[in-house]
Amino acid sequence: MGLLAGITSPAELRRLTPQQLPELAAEIRDFLVHNVSRTGGHLGPNLGVVELTLAMHRVFESPKDTFVFDTGHQAYVHKLLTGRQDFSGLRKRGGLSGYPSRSESEHDVVENSHASTALSWADGIAKANMVRGLTDRHVVAVIGDGALTGGMAWEALNNIAESEDRRVVIVVNDNGRSYSPTIGGLAHHLDTLRTTRGYEQFLGWGKRTLYRTGAPGRFAFSALHGLKKGLKDVVAPQGMFEDLGIKYIGPVDGHDEAALERALLRAREFQAPVIVHAITEKGRGYTPAEQDVADRFHAVGKIHPETGLPVAPSRFGWTSVFADEIVKIGRRRSDVVAITAAMLHPVGLAPFAQEFPERTFDVGIAEQHAATSAAGMAFAGLHPVVAVYATFLNRAFDQVLMDVALHKAGVTFVLDRAGLTGDDGASHNGMWDMAMLRIVPGLRLAAPRDEVTLRAALRTAVDVDDAPTVIRYPKSALVESIPAVSELDGVDVVARHAARPGAAARRVLVVGVGSMAGCAVATGEALAAHGLEVTVASPTWVLPVPAALVKLAGAHDLVVTIEDGVVDGGVGSMLAQRSSEQGVTTPQVHLGIPLQFLDHASIDQVTEASRLTAADATRDVLAALALL
Amino acid sequence: MGLLAGITSPAELRRLTPQQLPELAAEIRDFLVHNVSRTGGHLGPNLGVVELTLAMHRVFESPKDTFVFDTGHQAYVHKLLTGRQDFSGLRKRGGLSGYPSRSESEHDVVENSHASTALSWADGIAKANMVRGLTDRHVVAVIGDGALTGGMAWEALNNIAESEDRRVVIVVNDNGRSYSPTIGGLAHHLDTLRTTRGYEQFLGWGKRTLYRTGAPGRFAFSALHGLKKGLKDVVAPQGMFEDLGIKYIGPVDGHDEAALERALLRAREFQAPVIVHAITEKGRGYTPAEQDVADRFHAVGKIHPETGLPVAPSRFGWTSVFADEIVKIGRRRSDVVAITAAMLHPVGLAPFAQEFPERTFDVGIAEQHAATSAAGMAFAGLHPVVAVYATFLNRAFDQVLMDVALHKAGVTFVLDRAGLTGDDGASHNGMWDMAMLRIVPGLRLAAPRDEVTLRAALRTAVDVDDAPTVIRYPKSALVESIPAVSELDGVDVVARHAARPGAAARRVLVVGVGSMAGCAVATGEALAAHGLEVTVASPTWVLPVPAALVKLAGAHDLVVTIEDGVVDGGVGSMLAQRSSEQGVTTPQVHLGIPLQFLDHASIDQVTEASRLTAADATRDVLAALALL
Repeated sequence: MGLLAGITSPAELRRLTPQQLPELAAEIRDFLVHNVSRTGGHLGPNLGVVELTLAMHRVFESPKDTFVFDTGHQAYVHKLLTGRQDFSGLRKRGGLSGYPSRSESEHDVVENSHASTALSWADGIAKANMVRGLTDRHVVAVIGDGALTGGMAWEALNNIAESEDRRVVIVVNDNGRSYSPTIGGLAHHLDTLRTTRGYEQFLGWGKRTLYRTGAPGRFAFSALHGLKKGLKDVVAPQGMFEDLGIKYIGPVDGHDEAALERALLRAREFQAPVIVHAITEKGRGYTPAEQDVADRFHAVGKIHPETGLPVAPSRFGWTSVFADEIVKIGRRRSDVVAITAAMLHPVGLAPFAQEFPERTFDVGIAEQHAATSAAGMAFAGLHPVVAVYATFLNRAFDQVLMDVALHKAGVTFVLDRAGLTGDDGASHNGMWDMAMLRIVPGLRLAAPRDEVTLRAALRTAVDVDDAPTVIRYPKSALVESIPAVSELDGVDVVARHAARPGAAARRVLVVGVGSMAGCAVATGEALAAHGLEVTVASPTWVLPVPAALVKLAGAHDLVVTIEDGVVDGGVGSMLAQRSSEQGVTTPQVHLGIPLQFLDHASIDQVTEASRLTAADATRDVLAALALL
Repeated sequence: MGLLAGITSPAELRRLTPQQLPELAAEIRDFLVHNVSRTGGHLGPNLGVVELTLAMHRVFESPKDTFVFDTGHQAYVHKLLTGRQDFSGLRKRGGLSGYPSRSESEHDVVENSHASTALSWADGIAKANMVRGLTDRHVVAVIGDGALTGGMAWEALNNIAESEDRRVVIVVNDNGRSYSPTIGGLAHHLDTLRTTRGYEQFLGWGKRTLYRTGAPGRFAFSALHGLKKGLKDVVAPQGMFEDLGIKYIGPVDGHDEAALERALLRAREFQAPVIVHAITEKGRGYTPAEQDVADRFHAVGKIHPETGLPVAPSRFGWTSVFADEIVKIGRRRSDVVAITAAMLHPVGLAPFAQEFPERTFDVGIAEQHAATSAAGMAFAGLHPVVAVYATFLNRAFDQVLMDVALHKAGVTFVLDRAGLTGDDGASHNGMWDMAMLRIVPGLRLAAPRDEVTLRAALRTAVDVDDAPTVIRYPKSALVESIPAVSELDGVDVVARHAARPGAAARRVLVVGVGSMAGCAVATGEALAAHGLEVTVASPTWVLPVPAALVKLAGAHDLVVTIEDGVVDGGVGSMLAQRSSEQGVTTPQVHLGIPLQFLDHASIDQVTEASRLTAADATRDVLAALALL
């Protein structure tokens, strides 16, 4: 690791000779494979941006110039070049974040790992620089072609184009895919740009020809005016970016560092917004990634570096159950269709897509469109199932409310990675869904606790044709089945403990929401050991609050709810509100995720830090009982 | 009203001769001016689409073909042609909705009045038709140029372009403005399309010339391939729509009914997605509207039809106070900048823009970008004030959470039209903001009760530099000032009533959120008349719940909260949660808007229907006291 170790800041990088850079790039790739294979992380994306990141740091001066990485999972190389070369704790508590992090470095700005935001950040920063008269600063935004399919990117492009003097450099990191291959008209357009650019010498010939032959008089002005743009389009379409008024440089080979530097230098010289279109290869230089057609090692767990094979089996048991059940439903119901926002494989829709390709729709990184087009499908006689990560549904709140719910559309949303996800940091935790969705009129939400209840909930959900339904389940491992011992109007009771004979008959209701059922059962056992009478309930459908749960609450002396969503406005608070309205005054204790952004750590660590363990619940119950 | 009265369905319209249509169009314009001047409504937009709507209903067959109107406020003509000609109750309870309404007609599909959704609806419906084998059905979406600046429209375009066989006709109703003149790169592009199209004959000449001179051999294939597109671009840019893969027809004079029919017929013949670009004039044919440069009578109250002058003065006192105070703040603080999402005038930012044009940013109908670019500005040293209607902030929930709050950005959101707005129907009520924003960590929200507290709250808000702040106020008239009689750690007490001597000293705390302070005061008086001891509190800052409010609750026997937001998860429920956590067990009664979509009616009517009156509050308190 000769060169890399010597780079403690971008200034040192700029001192290297061009000849040294290929060696440095190779060192960086070795470093990434060696380190990320041991911790897990976003390997493929970072292998794809080695040369690009080198060129950016040589041409621009961060932090005076601001670098913004869209989604942020491709910032490992940036970290290496800005003084952060200890990757041993990557995505672990106290170690490096898997995304840019302001607390790590002044070179990091945007921590949000939701896609398509970078251009808006860049526009805002550039506007501010302009207002403050800081005209020598550039803002460089790196955005993938996939992220350009998100609506925010369009809103930002439209604004960036508005100005002719804002120094925004948009690097389109085009690897033909986001998580999955990029879809839609934009993908075709980028493809056209990739394949027909580069014939710039044609321009000169065309220009001379048109001048020589002479356009008919009445068209002359228009012809001259449109000449450069129009003729270039003959062999090299200017494309929509220039239609919008943003200069375009490209395509550039994203693994030719010198070419990238030249392109970025040209971009820097413009006093106007400019796009640099870099063609990169995800997983570049690492054979197992290059050979992985499905997702090119987008995000890996621990792997054997030589083979790329995972060290441990997949953790995504919940996803597999959904994947299996939705195919079964699809066979039975020809009106059921599936929608994914560029994450066919991660959300488990690949088997459905394989069996029903004509009933599967990948809309790009476009959750808003996923929701509203689903409402349209429901209107026209289908039942769409929209499968997304829980945290990404936040982006479609307005559409779930105004397009799906207001129109009483039978649409099922399947929220994977709900609750705590841990190592991806604050913006990946799926902790807002229940509190957000509780204010959608008519919406029904299920939080199944195990395989059996997940399958049943999904079957129930797709039968609802006049309201949105939601199924949410976590990233954590699928647990052993937790059977119901009895059922009360749709609310499963999963454990009952009689009071210890002779003990004061204090009755405690423990409510475990979804995957917290296990914690609720353990809490019930611990409380029973204290001699209490305990009922442990696990309602699969928690929105709206089941009437039976309010009734159960009324039959106990204390209620404790445990949920892996924000405690403010969560299921517990909802149960309290409904109880109060119905004159049920049983005191309640609500355990859930505190309302704060959570630093990255393992799921177990953030669970403990959030006090979502049976020990915490037991302690809180005993304390509350002492006050009764 | 000779012709119009005879049209009870589109079938009758199709029987008219082309010669009769100008007469019908004139009748419709007379009808609109005559009727909307008496009820108020979206006059300008509908005057602009008379010929367009006629042509649509003559070429396509609704409801077999599906019509989708973006934002829906331009559907009056559509209503007239589909059997709804009694406009006397427009936007009044029991009368016609100001938007499409499924309960009114099988010709209406999308009721959501939030912008930029139509193309997603169209994509979904077209996909469903394809899946179901209904290949003879077209979907026609009408969308304004302004709405195309919204990110959802881009997501949908990208998807619509994906398919080559989906029968989607996108009518771009281009009047160069949304509420305000359309901004950004898209506006420039549409302008280019408007001014350089129509030289199609040039194509033939260019084609011949290129063939004759011959392109250099190695470019020949590309040249031939790109020929048609490229050469057309010389004088008539194909534009980004065709770059994406969507056919383009236009521009068409949007007031030439015959030309529109021809264009729509061509569009119908395509078996593929196609854009028809119609150039219309908002307010067309009504002199006062045509002369109103600012917004061309976008939405009017009752007006004198001859002059266009309003019958009553503007109701938007809250907006005026904000407009005035933000200018004062702007004079004092050069770092304060303003952002609007295409609504400079309605949200009261016009005076600020006039005085500080370089510090005012209209981002288009792009709330997501408004929020995230504001986060960027805050990072770069400014304090942005984003002014939007409360209901439209729903669309930026993810950005407020992940870009603003997660990054501790000092951004102030000013929510106009918060609470009940009434006559614009379900999707215009600003009733979700508080319940939605309560789950944003660190966010502070103020609901001022009058002019004094609004001004003070705004000044406080712009001083916060490490968290989002929100000010929300209603559409209803600005009330008389309600002074504080005392103050407890930031919570204003606006009335105190001692118990009637000798009466049982039941102490009631009445909490009025924001503009419900008046209702709270009246409730307090009514309760005092029943001999109770009453404290009426009006906390301006309600998020997070002030500790003093919890303390106050603990010092009373009953708490009643009154808020004009959804009661589920609202301020009351939050106060209950915080109280419970701190061992304050005072029973609480929460009044707020029930969790349902509200049909259009006057603000007073929906307020009464929501039981948000002093009489309701008094009744509920007395009932609750009886149970204690």
